[in-house]
Amino acid sequence: MLGSTHGTLTTDSRRARVIACGEQPGPAVHGRPADADDLDVSGRPLYAAVPDLDRFFRPESVAVVGASDAEGRPNTGVTRQLVDWAERVGARLHPVHPTRESVFGLPCFPSVAELPEQVDLAVLLVADPLPVIEQLAETKVKFAVVFASGFAETGEEGALAQERLAAAVARSGRSGTGLRLLGPNTNLNAFERFRDDLTGPSIALITQSGHQGRPVFALQELGIRLSHWAPTGNEADLETADFLSYFAELPEVGAIACYVEGLKDGRSFLLAADRAARRGVPVVAVKVGRTEAGARTAASHTGKLTGADDVVDAAMRQYGVIRVDGLDELQDTAALLARARPPQADGVVVYSISGGTGAHAADLATAAGLQLPPLSPAKQAELHQWIPEYLNVANPVDNGGHPVGDWRGRKIIDAILDDPAVGVLICPITGPFPPLSDRLVQDLVDAAERTDKLVCAVWGSPVGTEPAYRDVLLGSSRVATFRTLAGCITAVRAHLDHHRFVSDYHSPFDQAPRTPSPSFRKARLLMRPGEQLSEHAAKQLLRAYGIRVPREQLVTSAAAAVRAAALVGYPVVMKASGGQIAHKTELGLVKIGLTSASQVRDAYRELTDIARYEGVSLDGVLVCQMVERGVEMVVGVTHDDLFGPTVTVGLGGVLVEVLHDVAVRVPPFGEDQARAMLAELRGRALLDGVRGRPPSDLDALVEVVLRVQRMALELGEDLAELDINPLVVLPWGQGAVALDALAVCR
Amino acid sequence: MLGSTHGTLTTDSRRARVIACGEQPGPAVHGRPADADDLDVSGRPLYAAVPDLDRFFRPESVAVVGASDAEGRPNTGVTRQLVDWAERVGARLHPVHPTRESVFGLPCFPSVAELPEQVDLAVLLVADPLPVIEQLAETKVKFAVVFASGFAETGEEGALAQERLAAAVARSGRSGTGLRLLGPNTNLNAFERFRDDLTGPSIALITQSGHQGRPVFALQELGIRLSHWAPTGNEADLETADFLSYFAELPEVGAIACYVEGLKDGRSFLLAADRAARRGVPVVAVKVGRTEAGARTAASHTGKLTGADDVVDAAMRQYGVIRVDGLDELQDTAALLARARPPQADGVVVYSISGGTGAHAADLATAAGLQLPPLSPAKQAELHQWIPEYLNVANPVDNGGHPVGDWRGRKIIDAILDDPAVGVLICPITGPFPPLSDRLVQDLVDAAERTDKLVCAVWGSPVGTEPAYRDVLLGSSRVATFRTLAGCITAVRAHLDHHRFVSDYHSPFDQAPRTPSPSFRKARLLMRPGEQLSEHAAKQLLRAYGIRVPREQLVTSAAAAVRAAALVGYPVVMKASGGQIAHKTELGLVKIGLTSASQVRDAYRELTDIARYEGVSLDGVLVCQMVERGVEMVVGVTHDDLFGPTVTVGLGGVLVEVLHDVAVRVPPFGEDQARAMLAELRGRALLDGVRGRPPSDLDALVEVVLRVQRMALELGEDLAELDINPLVVLPWGQGAVALDALAVCR
Repeated sequence: MLGSTHGTLTTDSRRARVIACGEQPGPAVHGRPADADDLDVSGRPLYAAVPDLDRFFRPESVAVVGASDAEGRPNTGVTRQLVDWAERVGARLHPVHPTRESVFGLPCFPSVAELPEQVDLAVLLVADPLPVIEQLAETKVKFAVVFASGFAETGEEGALAQERLAAAVARSGRSGTGLRLLGPNTNLNAFERFRDDLTGPSIALITQSGHQGRPVFALQELGIRLSHWAPTGNEADLETADFLSYFAELPEVGAIACYVEGLKDGRSFLLAADRAARRGVPVVAVKVGRTEAGARTAASHTGKLTGADDVVDAAMRQYGVIRVDGLDELQDTAALLARARPPQADGVVVYSISGGTGAHAADLATAAGLQLPPLSPAKQAELHQWIPEYLNVANPVDNGGHPVGDWRGRKIIDAILDDPAVGVLICPITGPFPPLSDRLVQDLVDAAERTDKLVCAVWGSPVGTEPAYRDVLLGSSRVATFRTLAGCITAVRAHLDHHRFVSDYHSPFDQAPRTPSPSFRKARLLMRPGEQLSEHAAKQLLRAYGIRVPREQLVTSAAAAVRAAALVGYPVVMKASGGQIAHKTELGLVKIGLTSASQVRDAYRELTDIARYEGVSLDGVLVCQMVERGVEMVVGVTHDDLFGPTVTVGLGGVLVEVLHDVAVRVPPFGEDQARAMLAELRGRALLDGVRGRPPSDLDALVEVVLRVQRMALELGEDLAELDINPLVVLPWGQGAVALDALAVCR
Repeated sequence: MLGSTHGTLTTDSRRARVIACGEQPGPAVHGRPADADDLDVSGRPLYAAVPDLDRFFRPESVAVVGASDAEGRPNTGVTRQLVDWAERVGARLHPVHPTRESVFGLPCFPSVAELPEQVDLAVLLVADPLPVIEQLAETKVKFAVVFASGFAETGEEGALAQERLAAAVARSGRSGTGLRLLGPNTNLNAFERFRDDLTGPSIALITQSGHQGRPVFALQELGIRLSHWAPTGNEADLETADFLSYFAELPEVGAIACYVEGLKDGRSFLLAADRAARRGVPVVAVKVGRTEAGARTAASHTGKLTGADDVVDAAMRQYGVIRVDGLDELQDTAALLARARPPQADGVVVYSISGGTGAHAADLATAAGLQLPPLSPAKQAELHQWIPEYLNVANPVDNGGHPVGDWRGRKIIDAILDDPAVGVLICPITGPFPPLSDRLVQDLVDAAERTDKLVCAVWGSPVGTEPAYRDVLLGSSRVATFRTLAGCITAVRAHLDHHRFVSDYHSPFDQAPRTPSPSFRKARLLMRPGEQLSEHAAKQLLRAYGIRVPREQLVTSAAAAVRAAALVGYPVVMKASGGQIAHKTELGLVKIGLTSASQVRDAYRELTDIARYEGVSLDGVLVCQMVERGVEMVVGVTHDDLFGPTVTVGLGGVLVEVLHDVAVRVPPFGEDQARAMLAELRGRALLDGVRGRPPSDLDALVEVVLRVQRMALELGEDLAELDINPLVVLPWGQGAVALDALAVCR
């Protein structure tokens, strides 16, 4: 597995060296080592550091610190479970306890220093793990698991204790032993009894709450293979991203299911998701924080950042992470994506023994964005050999019931699956009617064995103890079985979307800038730490990045204004300019359409009078070229707690003010995503031209978005906020002009 | 049951008379008879005609026409089922067959004319039911069920055959026997074996497809009582609405679940829903037709109209019908609403044995609009007697697991339910862990017996064979048990919404106008059948209904224009006026801000020149008062296939053009609904005033909407389309003015 090749990363010769020498300086890294080359211009890494967790999940030797076999002690049950698990995975287990001689018949050692061998994994059941971790950091133990709670999840004091744990682990990295820690506040999920009789691609599970992973674990009882479960707890060291990138490398893993409350670091999560996307491994995630109340509760539960939900949503979509809301959707979608082969076509056919069921399923599938192409007349004629002429077989295919009861049932299913436009067959069975449904179910199972296409059955009975469901459908590893139509539709949509996404995927990290542009040198000189720039200075910043602004001059006298107007060209716009001015229009600090020297002189006087009256200090008055009408947009940069600088674009005026119609992306992203942002806007039709207006210069708008991204990356934290409002997008071929801008430096 | 009293209708003394005399002229009617009084101004009924279906569901005698006991005949199984059913309900069954002597040991009669008694119900298993229906129409048989298919669902010819059936039934109504027919293209669902050991309020089920009702029927296996199932088939006579209003009268029915593909008549459905709303009986419905593809398929399956989906949605909401999309939601929501007592408070508490589960559930519940109030400090202190101090008990309440295992579990649940702010407790159990979950489940079941508040459990394990779920949770009639959190949240939301809805409900039919207003007489004179009115005429129509329009004059010469401008008052707007003009602004046929006689003269010339050039025929030029700026709205009337005239209101300009931000209602509706329409608009903040603009005159806008509704009701089909665009809503207290209007007469 370690030797498995993959995409751009494996072409790097350094990788073989790293794997060959075994021990690395710092945390184990499968992919590229963290070289200076591998940082982008913002100083953040470009590739995921993939820890080698083989010895975590399959250690040769394990120490259990705080082991017990005394009746009634809480650690006794845990120790028992670990002893059983070690036996199953063939690991030597060494109990550690200061006073016990033996535990469950195994010789016990008084401390980790006195262990008989260098263990791969130490499981700490003690209430105060810090001294043990400090001891372990001096050894060559690879992994420690800390079960104790009472850390970051309990408040400030606990957070400090957690930092001390993390510091001890970090010291071990610097001193060369490279201990990695799971926890604190985690549990036994990684060491549970997984079913080993199930074959085929598996689900690997990552959860920040053991209870929330339980339903995915239980899927094994329905025949879905689970190979790993990483309960990440408080993530003092190892985090969701580490397991995500590790699981993405494992050939047996068909899909990764995550339950995430908060992330330790947005970037590391995206790098891990990028790795999964490059390898085509689907990642399905529940991420708590749809509402502020939910985000607050989740944060208080894990002590981690949740991020603004729209940013989380966008970031996940950028890297193809399939976000779902419910644990039922997590199960359905992960199970399907783990096991289904790549789709041969996007077309979905709904097939049922009832026209009503077909109509309902087709309606909901279409509403969810699935494509239900009408079958060709030839295919319909073929189906009508077996299905009465008056029934609709265009798609949905209604067989009316009877043909299911005999040899025709099988012919029909094969004929549908044989159609090259069809990639997926969905068969909703809303209630068991054994004479028909038992036969139908068997035909589906048999047909699924003969095809590479996706066959889905929806067993709609709420009872779920029927043999056709429990034995036949769940007994098949080829039919994807669901309990609700919605669950099926969500999963099929995710399956088709995933394969479309990975086949088009180009990692944005490969194209991310590593060195500052010439623009950056100019821009740096314009930055004023801790200040809001004046409109004029903010526009200079834009100009440094090649974003067009109107011709304009900053003047400090009426006479200079008149000279400037002549240079800029009439008609002109005049605006008060200063570092602290907001709502210029509302205050009357903007004069438009000035066509003569005398109007300019009057305007100068009026603007300075208003400023004086309002107590606004000016650095002058801007005399600007008047730009013709176009579509007003807003483009900006804001900072997210989790993901750092983000780029937003929206339709200006009422759409952004009243409807907050904006799209957001986390850099780095390419032109495709910039275009996708525009496609997301509810008011996007405005850019195409409505009421006879010409279509706008989309290319110019996309270019501005990408240049703003470059600013966000290069200026990083120093640029606390940027807001181009409005950016006027002119008709096709005529560009886009930033009429006003606000920039705040940190 | 027939004598049960209800709201306004039971105060009508005619009702007792109707029930007493038994046979009515025309279809049996429980409520008010269809008097002239009971029609609104559009000539449509104001009250549901409720058929007496007691003898349909509980007949004393039944004839089975086409009965068979011959092995291998399709009718044999059906006959067997009917014989069993008749035995169960205590009905005498008479087989009818031209040649058989006896069927299943029962004496057989050659035709319905030779039956030994007047049966309540005739079930027709024959391929050609028309002759039998014609025979029955001459008898006093109350009900016929026609199983045969091949009618409207198969196309035009079938539709004609169905019309003949309907006509025979209608003749029986006129001749006084009053036969009612179920079907054709229906099935045995009404005569299935219902569990009779379940008690408490039941679900009554109405479906247009037997297969789609199967999961609700199967709920009986989970302990949910089902009392009736009406499979309405093609609805040649009895329709969904008939069963809806009948079920709403039955005291044992706690909720009505419907699966609807199309409706025979929108009005009768709404009248039935109104009846259920008056009685506080919840109606939960799946209605196919979210997408055009779905609507088309459904229509071809049932031969019924689906209506525009946004209109269906609005109409259902107006009458409190809870629309859901999936059969799983239909089950969950109907089961909860049938059995839950009215909520004592809107507050929802999430209680779990895991902080992660609580955070996730709280997030999704809040996103769905449920209120999760933080528990009071006193209540939290009380809970902390049993729950460790570091766990969050504000809401969600996280008990950390351990307290569930002993006596504290019960104390915690009781303490939460005891809080007056709490109406609902939701306990998600994502995975079984018998030492804790078995005890938790038993505590929930016990607590639910001691409280009137709603206790919900979500059993999240996908396995579903665990005893805690199957025996304990499903064994309780007081705990509402769900398999998914989403299902629980949807149902709880529906439960709280339903009770809020019915407690505020005033039937709009009680207030609907019965006689034309004085406006109608003026309006009628302005209507031009088959024509689009000129702008001027359309505005006269508005003026007739008291809707303000600008002062304006229609002129046919430049000189008259100048005189009109002086009367109207400068500045003026001038517009070309004619029956066929659309897109006036784009064609340059509007001139605004004219301030002098010479500008008016020039404008007149220019407008008539353009009209000549564009080949547009004018009835003149409008010289209009210029109205100050306000918020531009659109208000209009369109016709829906299913529900007739509808009223729409939207925000004008880009919001309606690009985002189609409109709300729709089906008349009759009151001021509350007119206000609710405005609240639905995504851009509603514009009306409240943004960017320092004053708030708009909402009262005036609501008044216009209500006056437009009056037009829609009184002018009915004659007014094919009305579109006020824009209606300028001025600042608070200043009214609203229709600047332009389009009216098309039929």
